[in-house]
Amino acid sequence: MSGFQFTLLAQDGGARRGTLTTAHGTAQTPAFMAVGTAGTVKAMTADQVRTTGSQIVLGNTYHLMLRPGADRVAALGGLHRMMDWPGIILTDSGGYQVMSLAKLRKLDEIGVTFRSHIDGSSHHLTPESSTAIQHKLDATITMAFDECTPFPATYEEAAASMRLSMRWAARSRAAFVPREGYGQFGIVQGGIYPALRAESAAALTAIGFEGYAIGGLAVGEGQAAMFDTLETTTPHLPIDQPRYLMGVGTPDDLLGAIARGVDMFDCVIPTRAGRTGRAYTARGVFNLRNARFADDASPLDPGCACTLCTRHSAAYLHHLFRCEEMLGPMLLTGHNLTYYQALMRGARDAIEQGRFAAYAAAARDGWRQGDD
Amino acid sequence: MSGFQFTLLAQDGGARRGTLTTAHGTAQTPAFMAVGTAGTVKAMTADQVRTTGSQIVLGNTYHLMLRPGADRVAALGGLHRMMDWPGIILTDSGGYQVMSLAKLRKLDEIGVTFRSHIDGSSHHLTPESSTAIQHKLDATITMAFDECTPFPATYEEAAASMRLSMRWAARSRAAFVPREGYGQFGIVQGGIYPALRAESAAALTAIGFEGYAIGGLAVGEGQAAMFDTLETTTPHLPIDQPRYLMGVGTPDDLLGAIARGVDMFDCVIPTRAGRTGRAYTARGVFNLRNARFADDASPLDPGCACTLCTRHSAAYLHHLFRCEEMLGPMLLTGHNLTYYQALMRGARDAIEQGRFAAYAAAARDGWRQGDD
Repeated sequence: MSGFQFTLLAQDGGARRGTLTTAHGTAQTPAFMAVGTAGTVKAMTADQVRTTGSQIVLGNTYHLMLRPGADRVAALGGLHRMMDWPGIILTDSGGYQVMSLAKLRKLDEIGVTFRSHIDGSSHHLTPESSTAIQHKLDATITMAFDECTPFPATYEEAAASMRLSMRWAARSRAAFVPREGYGQFGIVQGGIYPALRAESAAALTAIGFEGYAIGGLAVGEGQAAMFDTLETTTPHLPIDQPRYLMGVGTPDDLLGAIARGVDMFDCVIPTRAGRTGRAYTARGVFNLRNARFADDASPLDPGCACTLCTRHSAAYLHHLFRCEEMLGPMLLTGHNLTYYQALMRGARDAIEQGRFAAYAAAARDGWRQGDD
Repeated sequence: MSGFQFTLLAQDGGARRGTLTTAHGTAQTPAFMAVGTAGTVKAMTADQVRTTGSQIVLGNTYHLMLRPGADRVAALGGLHRMMDWPGIILTDSGGYQVMSLAKLRKLDEIGVTFRSHIDGSSHHLTPESSTAIQHKLDATITMAFDECTPFPATYEEAAASMRLSMRWAARSRAAFVPREGYGQFGIVQGGIYPALRAESAAALTAIGFEGYAIGGLAVGEGQAAMFDTLETTTPHLPIDQPRYLMGVGTPDDLLGAIARGVDMFDCVIPTRAGRTGRAYTARGVFNLRNARFADDASPLDPGCACTLCTRHSAAYLHHLFRCEEMLGPMLLTGHNLTYYQALMRGARDAIEQGRFAAYAAAARDGWRQGDD
């Protein structure tokens, strides 16, 4: 099935510059995907998400199957129409949230039985049902159903978990209905063990997907172990297909992973931090609740093009958080996403121009003024 | 001092169509002012407030003097610049909130001493300090400092309270610094007693203000008593100056008050209701949390131009409120304000064309499909 196409435009060391063409438009990579868990990027209208430069929104199968329900989303015309996001949508498989949020989980070869964290109702997720739900949601990119291997895990535990995920990946692929411009990604597992990552990558590429995700990272192993794992994993993935590092990360994580050949990211950091008063800026991370911002008439991030930075002072944002006004999270979420997208845009330009290492070094240098 | 000018363009029965020209632009009346208590219309960016058709934003002196503080707002360039609202801003005097929110109040001829409901700190408000604070906030329209007479009140209680407010009105006027395009409104008090309202109106017009508010209504007296009081009060106010009914009201209240000669309104109803899932529409009021909206793929209010009604289904809004997503209050606040402003725009057109009574009757007829 054609119409879903990744094109590698340039390489700069390990860093890659590409385009991903789909039924719902084209994304420039490296790309950061805004997390829209329950059919909304929290505290943002769809227009505001577009204004940040976000090209892809991620939806969570676990949340959406519980509320409003996949059949209901389908009846409302799919997730694109429901949330006013005609652009690319990637949905996860639900496997990660089942393990982190649901109660009374029971996992076997068939899949996972669990109780909703919202109302205790019983549900079953399998590779087949997860894939069907993502189809009903009308995800541009469907993720294979996998088990996110806990950390720490012994080699044997990681191997058993990964091999189960590989059997589920084959079942997910069999359940996927190819449609013009739609794609499905397999997920490499294997913990921090290079041999297992290689085995997983080989298993997935033998099945054949439109892209490959790297899962089971950013679960407590630390940045160094994450980067090591990326370095031993990406060489096993096809050069002409997109690579997606799931659930990562800080701006520094993103630059490090781009250098190691990753094309796509998603993370709740910019949106969650936006709701708690943590600002990601070219000068580093700042806690806007800090009293030193109370009289700061300057913009939070002078180089930023967002509504917050072009229209308001840091003192106003401080005031909004102090008064627990909803506009604080709204403006800061918009800013944080704008910063993340500007960082990605800068990375894309730098890769095209063969100066990615210098770009990343300059960005890291700028962050040193921050709180942490 | 010129530059602050009300022009009466048309009359239709008691209803008036005018323009209010100020240092911060012109408003068309009848006008509904969006409430921006602490320097933000809750759940809305300034751009979104503009998109609703709102021409004037109201700020609360009590809230702003406590946080972020009047001197700080002044240092940040005033309220217009702080909140990105270069348009008209009206600030109340703080008197009403002192009585409804503050603790340990002590009222005497000089003013009110109170403790902040936020941190218990002690503050003093007088006609002079309230006027000075509103100057620091850079309010286009300053309100005289008054005591909002409680309801019920005997004739003697209402008379004593009103006469104190009239002495405070004279002191407020003396403290007001005239500036080109800025104005100050006196506030008619007197409870539900026509003779006291007439006495109050005479006292205020003798002092002379750029406009006159009608205070102490919508405090429990009921719509019929409120309308009766308006009918006996507005004839005592100058025909060529704006009249502002404070803290009112429902769409039906607004149409009834317009018919009785009121030009300006403010009320938390559309914004507060927007945060709790209550929708004001041409078909009446609906509770969007109601399960009957779960599968409603149609827009909430098909004739409405807001983001919610043009981009999303009622089912999506129901989903957002069910999941307590911030986007629910954001979208519904925008809708409710858009509805209020469309109702005002329709009223202005109808008055110009001499068909206000028919317009109001048709609007009331439409509301009958609502929940309440």
